[in-house]
Amino acid sequence: MKKILVVNGPNLGLLGTREPAIYGTVTLADIVAAVRQAAEAKGVHVDAVQSDVEGELVRAILSSRGAYDGVILNPAAFTHTSVALHDAIKACETPVVEVHLSNVYAREGYRHESLTACACRGQICGFGKEGYLLALEALLALY
Amino acid sequence: MKKILVVNGPNLGLLGTREPAIYGTVTLADIVAAVRQAAEAKGVHVDAVQSDVEGELVRAILSSRGAYDGVILNPAAFTHTSVALHDAIKACETPVVEVHLSNVYAREGYRHESLTACACRGQICGFGKEGYLLALEALLALY
Amino acid sequence: MKKILVVNGPNLGLLGTREPAIYGTVTLADIVAAVRQAAEAKGVHVDAVQSDVEGELVRAILSSRGAYDGVILNPAAFTHTSVALHDAIKACETPVVEVHLSNVYAREGYRHESLTACACRGQICGFGKEGYLLALEALLALY
Amino acid sequence: MKKILVVNGPNLGLLGTREPAIYGTVTLADIVAAVRQAAEAKGVHVDAVQSDVEGELVRAILSSRGAYDGVILNPAAFTHTSVALHDAIKACETPVVEVHLSNVYAREGYRHESLTACACRGQICGFGKEGYLLALEALLALY
Amino acid sequence: MKKILVVNGPNLGLLGTREPAIYGTVTLADIVAAVRQAAEAKGVHVDAVQSDVEGELVRAILSSRGAYDGVILNPAAFTHTSVALHDAIKACETPVVEVHLSNVYAREGYRHESLTACACRGQICGFGKEGYLLALEALLALY
Amino acid sequence: MKKILVVNGPNLGLLGTREPAIYGTVTLADIVAAVRQAAEAKGVHVDAVQSDVEGELVRAILSSRGAYDGVILNPAAFTHTSVALHDAIKACETPVVEVHLSNVYAREGYRHESLTACACRGQICGFGKEGYLLALEALLALY
Amino acid sequence: MKKILVVNGPNLGLLGTREPAIYGTVTLADIVAAVRQAAEAKGVHVDAVQSDVEGELVRAILSSRGAYDGVILNPAAFTHTSVALHDAIKACETPVVEVHLSNVYAREGYRHESLTACACRGQICGFGKEGYLLALEALLALY
Amino acid sequence: MKKILVVNGPNLGLLGTREPAIYGTVTLADIVAAVRQAAEAKGVHVDAVQSDVEGELVRAILSSRGAYDGVILNPAAFTHTSVALHDAIKACETPVVEVHLSNVYAREGYRHESLTACACRGQICGFGKEGYLLALEALLALY
Amino acid sequence: MKKILVVNGPNLGLLGTREPAIYGTVTLADIVAAVRQAAEAKGVHVDAVQSDVEGELVRAILSSRGAYDGVILNPAAFTHTSVALHDAIKACETPVVEVHLSNVYAREGYRHESLTACACRGQICGFGKEGYLLALEALLALY
Amino acid sequence: MKKILVVNGPNLGLLGTREPAIYGTVTLADIVAAVRQAAEAKGVHVDAVQSDVEGELVRAILSSRGAYDGVILNPAAFTHTSVALHDAIKACETPVVEVHLSNVYAREGYRHESLTACACRGQICGFGKEGYLLALEALLALY
Amino acid sequence: MKKILVVNGPNLGLLGTREPAIYGTVTLADIVAAVRQAAEAKGVHVDAVQSDVEGELVRAILSSRGAYDGVILNPAAFTHTSVALHDAIKACETPVVEVHLSNVYAREGYRHESLTACACRGQICGFGKEGYLLALEALLALY
Amino acid sequence: MKKILVVNGPNLGLLGTREPAIYGTVTLADIVAAVRQAAEAKGVHVDAVQSDVEGELVRAILSSRGAYDGVILNPAAFTHTSVALHDAIKACETPVVEVHLSNVYAREGYRHESLTACACRGQICGFGKEGYLLALEALLALY
Repeated sequence: MKKILVVNGPNLGLLGTREPAIYGTVTLADIVAAVRQAAEAKGVHVDAVQSDVEGELVRAILSSRGAYDGVILNPAAFTHTSVALHDAIKACETPVVEVHLSNVYAREGYRHESLTACACRGQICGFGKEGYLLALEALLALY
Repeated sequence: MKKILVVNGPNLGLLGTREPAIYGTVTLADIVAAVRQAAEAKGVHVDAVQSDVEGELVRAILSSRGAYDGVILNPAAFTHTSVALHDAIKACETPVVEVHLSNVYAREGYRHESLTACACRGQICGFGKEGYLLALEALLALY
Repeated sequence: MKKILVVNGPNLGLLGTREPAIYGTVTLADIVAAVRQAAEAKGVHVDAVQSDVEGELVRAILSSRGAYDGVILNPAAFTHTSVALHDAIKACETPVVEVHLSNVYAREGYRHESLTACACRGQICGFGKEGYLLALEALLALY
Repeated sequence: MKKILVVNGPNLGLLGTREPAIYGTVTLADIVAAVRQAAEAKGVHVDAVQSDVEGELVRAILSSRGAYDGVILNPAAFTHTSVALHDAIKACETPVVEVHLSNVYAREGYRHESLTACACRGQICGFGKEGYLLALEALLALY
Repeated sequence: MKKILVVNGPNLGLLGTREPAIYGTVTLADIVAAVRQAAEAKGVHVDAVQSDVEGELVRAILSSRGAYDGVILNPAAFTHTSVALHDAIKACETPVVEVHLSNVYAREGYRHESLTACACRGQICGFGKEGYLLALEALLALY
Repeated sequence: MKKILVVNGPNLGLLGTREPAIYGTVTLADIVAAVRQAAEAKGVHVDAVQSDVEGELVRAILSSRGAYDGVILNPAAFTHTSVALHDAIKACETPVVEVHLSNVYAREGYRHESLTACACRGQICGFGKEGYLLALEALLALY
Repeated sequence: MKKILVVNGPNLGLLGTREPAIYGTVTLADIVAAVRQAAEAKGVHVDAVQSDVEGELVRAILSSRGAYDGVILNPAAFTHTSVALHDAIKACETPVVEVHLSNVYAREGYRHESLTACACRGQICGFGKEGYLLALEALLALY
Repeated sequence: MKKILVVNGPNLGLLGTREPAIYGTVTLADIVAAVRQAAEAKGVHVDAVQSDVEGELVRAILSSRGAYDGVILNPAAFTHTSVALHDAIKACETPVVEVHLSNVYAREGYRHESLTACACRGQICGFGKEGYLLALEALLALY
Repeated sequence: MKKILVVNGPNLGLLGTREPAIYGTVTLADIVAAVRQAAEAKGVHVDAVQSDVEGELVRAILSSRGAYDGVILNPAAFTHTSVALHDAIKACETPVVEVHLSNVYAREGYRHESLTACACRGQICGFGKEGYLLALEALLALY
Repeated sequence: MKKILVVNGPNLGLLGTREPAIYGTVTLADIVAAVRQAAEAKGVHVDAVQSDVEGELVRAILSSRGAYDGVILNPAAFTHTSVALHDAIKACETPVVEVHLSNVYAREGYRHESLTACACRGQICGFGKEGYLLALEALLALY
Repeated sequence: MKKILVVNGPNLGLLGTREPAIYGTVTLADIVAAVRQAAEAKGVHVDAVQSDVEGELVRAILSSRGAYDGVILNPAAFTHTSVALHDAIKACETPVVEVHLSNVYAREGYRHESLTACACRGQICGFGKEGYLLALEALLALY
Repeated sequence: MKKILVVNGPNLGLLGTREPAIYGTVTLADIVAAVRQAAEAKGVHVDAVQSDVEGELVRAILSSRGAYDGVILNPAAFTHTSVALHDAIKACETPVVEVHLSNVYAREGYRHESLTACACRGQICGFGKEGYLLALEALLALY
């Protein structure tokens, strides 16, 4: 049975309750549940982690090594500042797909540069919750 | 019945015959056929255009206005140099999803900057042919 | 009898029908008609070209050599990316006036740099349709 | 009766007497007279100010607030260095048109960047004295 | 009864014991006590957090949402590197005032750029312990 | 009896009458009156200067030397361009506090760099009129 | 029998008739004839293409794949802006030599950077028509 | 008896098991054991810490203050992003030597800049496990 | 009889009374007197101007046109920001020598770039009062 | 009888013996012999110099003045750092052709900028030994 | 018997006699003697070279090829400017260790970039004379 | 008896014979003779060195230590590239004055930055031979 790890970065725990007029009412729990439902329909197990601490995300990614078949990663703000996540993605040897809820290229300039994307298999951005489901498909298509 | 336009940029006509050891043997015709098959299974019509000429791509995108429900766009090399494509994407008012076969963030530095992504709904890169199918899903999920 | 060539670049064919709340309902045909009317009142003939293809604009400008007394050029998005238009303006030896409908200096940063303006006689921007009429006057004032 | 203020920046007082082989023999008084003559023919009053002092130009622009229907501004060298003029143009709420005698884009690189243009309605450059008359028309076309 | 949260970043726990000849003998406890005393005189409750871990500071700021009337934040070294703190300040929807003990603009160049200030209400720097008291007043003046 | 000099830079004379929907209806006279009232309550005398001319501001700051106990300075647009004000702040040897009405870090990029702040004791920004009162307190806390 | 393709970019069609005092009276036809004469003397066939349209040049280069033994390419203005030509040169797998009539390093700064040279075998510049003959020799020396 | 603290940053816990073909089979435990053995031979005690969390590394370095005679620090990915570690190294007042297993100057460009080295006594890179032993000698040579 | 104009920029009026431990006790009056004494010994008349206002310095330089045989200019802080002084130096057609009391190249980075020097005959810096006397000699050596 | 000077820069003395798997087994002596043979066949005399010392190369180039009809220069590493060679090429007034064995534009970024090319007649790179023979032809074609 | 070459760059000949209060009284001869003593204790022969001439250092490094087992190189000021030394280190195929007496990362910004380090095995800086001994050990540890 | 050393850098040996229409017919020997004559009139001895080799200039400057009372240095092209000369000027502890024949600020951009000036007492440029005599006076004025 395949296993996928969903890793979410800083401030994402507040999704759905923060500025719903802008971000909608979808919570992180909703997103993880949707990924799990879609995965289980294909016989795939899903675990999920959220942390505001960079080092805990590093540990989560390293823990995927030999234990998971793929990682769906939304590094949030750490996308633009974390060389440590970059190194962890390379070290874990698990295929990682980077996801962003919004189209980061339509936001502030300092969100255009990603330190993590070059270590991932690919990147999907701009499709909200749907993006996580696309990432799941992209990972499963590798097998 | 919904309609999707697939637009492919310069040099993509050579896919599958150029350096198959690196790029694989998938041709552009294979990709379009796969998108069409997946779309028709959902009752969606697909048209496709390929051109090496920037202005013909501009015309193709403008032609989608009021005529198509979504555009899957692989701007290839023009991603990094075309303000005209950026303007066309904005002007056509059709939802456009940018696709790249390879993970452009793992390639040369001048391929990291996209002039077109900020005008699109989102971007998907790094998943080869699979990326076009994910883009199709992302577009259909808008309705 | 003097002759003026009006050259319009990519995406301008959609003027008047695209986002009329923002860009107004003036079409490119309206603009050309206004220039022609003002010109003919002074005994000047006007021809007009629009293309989304950079190379066709290069050809149009080169064709003015020895055949026209002035060129009114709105390079649109190519303003910021085309060294080829720069070279064509220099090569045609016809006086060229660059026109922009909007004040490009009040828009995105990458629209502030013009590769073509330094090869022109002058630049007029920010006055909408009126700018083409000012350009006509500026050209006629040369004789 | 409409009123237009013409504001000229540093070193322009010397026009016509400095290097006539290059700049011609037109003086600033000639330019103002030409603007006044064209304006009065349309029932428009013209006042004119010249100063080498950045702060006096700020004061002149601020003084246009509620008192003039438009400003023709040649900021000369301050174009490239004055955030204070930028703020004054925004604060006065009068439409301002920036004029340059020469085509600044064909001169030294540090003359290509304008700190003031983005606060103006538009910019006209490269047409000598004629440019002031075009600016007058552009302002009157607003009403 | 109003509530204010004081959040202090990395290395500030050592204040008063590190290089007293330079930094003085004021400890972080002294600063918090002074803020608390001034606040209680006005019927305002004060809580305080210090952490060397970026993610714990993110959590502290997020925890202020709906629970505190204002945050006094000294992000210390994270001022210059943390997009995650920037996002947390925006997400918490509590008014945040950034404080620095020293005048950061008179120190090394990489301390001049703040990633957090643009998400705050304002910034106060250069006044040592006094700066926290000014920040308290600035927050209370909002109500 | 202590003496404080309040120095205000270009365009600030228009405060309260310019775009009241955005900037509010507080005038510069209101601000100076509020500073004077707060100061006199503590037995401190206040003088105030406003000028649009960079050199007059230089003279005002130099005049504080040996004559005032502190300067509250809002350099407005000159913050970003005036090396001369930087030198004057250093030369006058009076403690100077830089104040900005708005949070300059949340505005255009060219307003993020301050040439004057590094010569001041500290900087306060983002609190409107309240910021001047905080600056007064910060200065008095030095004695 | 070996075959060489000569590809010339935008504005080069005007050679010899434009500013002969500067560029001389050599036309593009003269250059192609000289290359053909030198090639035929060695039993080599020469075809030639000129276009002002970037995409037509891309097609020409791609068409060399498996059909020509070498390409002499003068990308003219596209040298500095075309990632598409770069990709085409790489994709065609034919040896390509970049030629410039003038010494581009002695001209404007934006002509110093070449996006195409790194994909070619080598570059020859500064020798006018002679440079094409040197490029022919360089290509034949590969066999 | 002297005491040395060895501090290792993110992802180093995986040493020896990750890509042994590239990084060799030496584990972090092996490195610490080698340092301890060399140190004890000279009557020096060694403690060691590894963490993926930036703030825990800050705490470890601060804890060395007055408790250790030297720190051997491999900040790994945090070398390039952590102003907080820089500040901690300065605050702890213990001599710190920066060590890198690989020659960081022969790797990606963003690994060439070190935010921590300027706060250390010196830097040693490129010698694998041997580098830690050289760092130990360098620290002991201070006494 | 030859005439030389000495022009001094912002903050120089305070020379000798500001920080005498650093700048010495030489006043601007002393410097002008020394230049005058040296000049009169050679039958040369000297006038001197000091202003903190950029525009007054522009006027002083423009006034030298046809009236003086040379200008000794210390632009002080305006050296680094004034395009207007640059233009005035070019417009006045009098030989101008730029003088700085200190070696500006050994001070802050933003003092290394001079906008005025390229319009002058030459530059002398680092020799205090002596530099003005050297400038006088340099000017007289032109005749 | 014409005379050509071949000047080779630092590290080129090791050609042919260093990493023959990469650079081939051609030595600098082979290259000079090939140039000499081709030259003598046309009645042209060839001298050659190699040095690792920048100043000796400057002297060699200066010595060509009035003594040689052309210089073939491979500045090697000095291409990118030597303003002195630039000045010498300009000062010698002999036509100089710059040659590089490899395609420098396909190597490290700091090898893309040439300080010497803009002072030469032209540049040839990427053709190994053949490039020297092409340079010889280019020089002889000048007469 | 192993052989090590110690190569010292410009200005290092003055060590010990220049500003002994800052640099100490250790001379270059002392350093070489210390390296030799430590080396001979392990049966290793040491030769040493010092030169102020870049090309002589290039020659020294090239001479190590096949003749020495390692090079200890202090390139001094050439660290930051010499592409020629970079090429020589690569060409000689001997292991080279870069040494700096001071911690270059705590000095001026232009000393932070090393053009030579990326071609070496590793770098050691900040430990004075001791650094040469550490470099010796690092080289011997390779065998 | 005082002693002055005159040090001239690369290409200056050709003065007077190279392009006399531009540089005049003054030779370096003439300049040195003029300095010597002016110096001997004041009882000062003059020695002079010219070299095209950077390292020989380093040696010359170091040789001035304790042996000369001042150095007049024209580093020519090395001004802009030599960190080694910078270090030598600092190490020699003799007062050094930098001289340039032309106004380097009116020449190419890469000649505006000086790596050596910040280590000198001062700089004089733009006065030809006269500049050396001014430098002599500046040096003698130190005693």
